[in-house]
Amino acid sequence: MDTYTFSERGSVEEVEEGRALAPKFDADGLVTCVATDAATGELLMVAHMNAEALAKTIESGEAWYFSRSRRRLWRKGESSGHVQRVLEMRVDCDQDAIWIRVEQAGPGACHTGRRSCFYRAVPLGKTPDASLVMDLRAEKAFDPQAVYGDAAKS
Amino acid sequence: MDTYTFSERGSVEEVEEGRALAPKFDADGLVTCVATDAATGELLMVAHMNAEALAKTIESGEAWYFSRSRRRLWRKGESSGHVQRVLEMRVDCDQDAIWIRVEQAGPGACHTGRRSCFYRAVPLGKTPDASLVMDLRAEKAFDPQAVYGDAAKS
Repeated sequence: MDTYTFSERGSVEEVEEGRALAPKFDADGLVTCVATDAATGELLMVAHMNAEALAKTIESGEAWYFSRSRRRLWRKGESSGHVQRVLEMRVDCDQDAIWIRVEQAGPGACHTGRRSCFYRAVPLGKTPDASLVMDLRAEKAFDPQAVYGDAAKS
Repeated sequence: MDTYTFSERGSVEEVEEGRALAPKFDADGLVTCVATDAATGELLMVAHMNAEALAKTIESGEAWYFSRSRRRLWRKGESSGHVQRVLEMRVDCDQDAIWIRVEQAGPGACHTGRRSCFYRAVPLGKTPDASLVMDLRAEKAFDPQAVYGDAAKS
């Protein structure tokens, strides 16, 4: 199905308390999407969806995104096979952010070869120039060059 | 401390594998920040940080954001008392998103009076005009009018 028409945005009350999905796309036509691992709760990645990606995700139950760098629609896993099956989707109060709880196929979500994109910690109580700390559990789970080559990072 | 100078962004390899925090602020000078409950893993909110908010969060260990609607820096809880103590901060591969695991003070993070901003589910396998489903566990935990009045929604 190719329809991706959402409800018109009504009053603040309607947007926040209503039952109509009326996403607030930004100037580039995007909403933020947060993907967490449905089993572990781990934050896997933060990406963006345009109206078409959001509609395709809803209809197919698989995660579609819009790549800002490549300026194109992108089915997660289309080149890597690391698809995301969406078990639950939620929308936030003002409807400019989407949360999907996914079953991540393959070894990882991150194009660097890791399970999660969030593999470095920022030390707290320091100045912002303190060194990041690599998560020792976040060793590369796959070889990104072998999986993606020089092609699309999905 | 008022410094909020971050590292220059280097090569892709440096940004993705390096130990320097070199955030990729967007055209509005913002990065996306995802806040999860450190105890339960629940996604509480998605917001934005400018360089100052990010630096203040790192230095203070309390969440600061930049409100896009109010165009100003905002310490989470400054009017509600619902502050967020940051137990861990992470940055993603291309450094345009921040993840904070927080201890949420008070009954909730959402200005609508709920624990989390993500209190409505989007039905999957349907068209995007299907009705949202309210999370029955997400009843209002506090009265937003009593806490915030007509003032800042923090």
